[in-house]
Amino acid sequence: MSILIKNILHNNQRTDIFIENNSFSLIGNNLDVKADKIIDGSGKAIVPAFYNTHNHAAMSILRGYSDDKPLFEWLQKDIWPVEAKFTAEDIYIASRLAILEMIKSGTVFFADMYFFCEQTMRAVAEMGIRGAVSKLAMDMFDRSRTQTQKKATAEFIKFSNPCPERIIKCLSCHAVYTVSDELFTYIRDIADQNNMYIQIHVSETEEENKDCLKKYGMSPIAKLDSLGLLSPKTILAHAVHLSDKDINIIKKRGAVISTNPTSNIKLNSGLFMFEKLYSLMPEQITLGTDGASSNNNLNMVESMKMCSFAAKIQGCSAIAGKASDIFKIATVNGAHAFGLNAGKIEEGCLADCLLLDLNNPFLTPNHNLISNLVYAADSSCISDVICDGRLVMENHIVPNEENIISEAQALAQKIKKIK
Amino acid sequence: MSILIKNILHNNQRTDIFIENNSFSLIGNNLDVKADKIIDGSGKAIVPAFYNTHNHAAMSILRGYSDDKPLFEWLQKDIWPVEAKFTAEDIYIASRLAILEMIKSGTVFFADMYFFCEQTMRAVAEMGIRGAVSKLAMDMFDRSRTQTQKKATAEFIKFSNPCPERIIKCLSCHAVYTVSDELFTYIRDIADQNNMYIQIHVSETEEENKDCLKKYGMSPIAKLDSLGLLSPKTILAHAVHLSDKDINIIKKRGAVISTNPTSNIKLNSGLFMFEKLYSLMPEQITLGTDGASSNNNLNMVESMKMCSFAAKIQGCSAIAGKASDIFKIATVNGAHAFGLNAGKIEEGCLADCLLLDLNNPFLTPNHNLISNLVYAADSSCISDVICDGRLVMENHIVPNEENIISEAQALAQKIKKIK
Repeated sequence: MSILIKNILHNNQRTDIFIENNSFSLIGNNLDVKADKIIDGSGKAIVPAFYNTHNHAAMSILRGYSDDKPLFEWLQKDIWPVEAKFTAEDIYIASRLAILEMIKSGTVFFADMYFFCEQTMRAVAEMGIRGAVSKLAMDMFDRSRTQTQKKATAEFIKFSNPCPERIIKCLSCHAVYTVSDELFTYIRDIADQNNMYIQIHVSETEEENKDCLKKYGMSPIAKLDSLGLLSPKTILAHAVHLSDKDINIIKKRGAVISTNPTSNIKLNSGLFMFEKLYSLMPEQITLGTDGASSNNNLNMVESMKMCSFAAKIQGCSAIAGKASDIFKIATVNGAHAFGLNAGKIEEGCLADCLLLDLNNPFLTPNHNLISNLVYAADSSCISDVICDGRLVMENHIVPNEENIISEAQALAQKIKKIK
Repeated sequence: MSILIKNILHNNQRTDIFIENNSFSLIGNNLDVKADKIIDGSGKAIVPAFYNTHNHAAMSILRGYSDDKPLFEWLQKDIWPVEAKFTAEDIYIASRLAILEMIKSGTVFFADMYFFCEQTMRAVAEMGIRGAVSKLAMDMFDRSRTQTQKKATAEFIKFSNPCPERIIKCLSCHAVYTVSDELFTYIRDIADQNNMYIQIHVSETEEENKDCLKKYGMSPIAKLDSLGLLSPKTILAHAVHLSDKDINIIKKRGAVISTNPTSNIKLNSGLFMFEKLYSLMPEQITLGTDGASSNNNLNMVESMKMCSFAAKIQGCSAIAGKASDIFKIATVNGAHAFGLNAGKIEEGCLADCLLLDLNNPFLTPNHNLISNLVYAADSSCISDVICDGRLVMENHIVPNEENIISEAQALAQKIKKIK
């Protein structure tokens, strides 16, 4: 498969871009190459696609199911009871809905943490984007669950990845308040042996920090570090409430932070210290949406603005959360965090990109495309999405979208009846 | 002109809706009426459209022109110098761009404050939405400018409104730091004599409040009240930094507040006290976007989420800024503030409404439509916009949009050269 994009705006200049197999092969004027598909890029711009580093994709089916409540009440009273009834097939249907929404809003990769993760992998494999999909470990300090989870993890290691070139098999531990030391160290060892990424929620709320201090005499970050869980292959979701000591540990270990501003504000968890952390470790900060039921979407365009705005409020400064910094964390930083040579429109990089409609009013006028994308755009500005060298959305249409939506609607009806 | 919408979701039930002339005429099942136009509402929902109560529409042409700076630096160094060079025709072109963007994102009314307002009126008249368009008064305490502005206001009173049924001719005074007492009282008298609304920026920043206290020995709200400027026909934009005394004055006078959360956060002006003010005067709070160059869009869907999120942060509560309250201020409150019998889908109300595409992934599943609209949606969810009984957007298309965009792009090129 090869794609030639003719005469497209790239870094403020018109150029041709040739995609061969799954990479950007040639970028230059008047390229004289044969391609399976030719796209007229006039009236369009090309930019990197988004890499969403924290998600619970299947929770999209719970969008709007419970709102305007603080994290623990929302999670324990409303979300966990309904989640307990989900089947594997439900997770497949819900994951497809989530991936459809992500493609429509320009995301080509997401890091996921949820039950029945094999079903999320199946949806990723079919729909053509990338996923770092993890087996979720969470034992609630119940020793029988610890054993079940260890067994399930061992089975997951043997599970055959349906699409190894686009799916990164990961592990995850829910959080210090839901995972025992035994399970944490087991997951750490399995990850080490298999060279796998681990995703962990950390310091999302002040309450979590207080409880951890009371229970373990240290912060969640210090606790994870004491268990040997922090490395460049650890993705720390949220990381809202960090001490200077915590920050030094994260920087030293090279662990990756996924900030989730929209979820953090919606649940009143707090505001990420963007300017401070980005200035200290600019490559270690990435952007995530969290699940749709605490956001309530998986729209990275919106999350970029929310991230910038949370930075401005937290830093009490209009200069904080600059558009260019935010765009970097949402694209190349997220790709690099998971070892992907992607997130840039450069020869040799994986061919993941968005085509933007420059005649969309939100992108008009084009004084500054990145500012427009971070501060003015919404999903309607994205006309085409390419992932791994293939068009996963063409002229706003994702293959099979009616079917994905109608199956999700039917599942939602079933959930209402369960309730 | 009449429109019959068949089988559309309205308040969680399927119904038919008949629009005759410019009002909702009949709402009920299986309506047996003849109509000029029939719309199949299956797969769609009908909701009120948005009423944007503070805008500088033509500033859309400066979208992305200057970002990541605090208000006074942004305004004085970057915005005012380029604005000084705008011609009347520029304002017409830029206003059309703004109205196109507003229609695409579901807005049927905006309150505007800008130069060459007759040109904005011309654009509103042509494009079919509503505007409360004001003559901007601002003399910078320069007595010769005071006289010029008085004269210009007197001429504006005589200016023939190009579309009285959709355009509300208003006056405005920029702010206490740019308008002399003489000009304020002149505008007040003209407004009183002609039964006109006055739009004023107030207490947008702490700096404004401090300077006012130093100069006049009172807050901006107290100053305006001392000049007799506060009434139910006064629209106070921003109102971020209010004392309890200020709040009591506003409540007592029945003045309307337009909160502009997106602009306030982007310029680091502060966070509006939503919960406190909404609980004290629920009918007096409305929502605005401010101009696109400090937002950087005119998208009320996004501004609703930003308003809720600013409320949650300001109130330190996940419960603050509930979706239903936010939807109310963005719709019916804005309409009522300007005396429009609109903002509701009810027989007898002005026929302003949106048709939402229920098969859009952001609106799937539909556990709660208002939550989805406030927390998950973007402009792509809106397929059709009806204002004053006429379709101003049909199936995502606004008449003449290519032309509006290309003229705006040409104007932006001219602005770059001026720079």
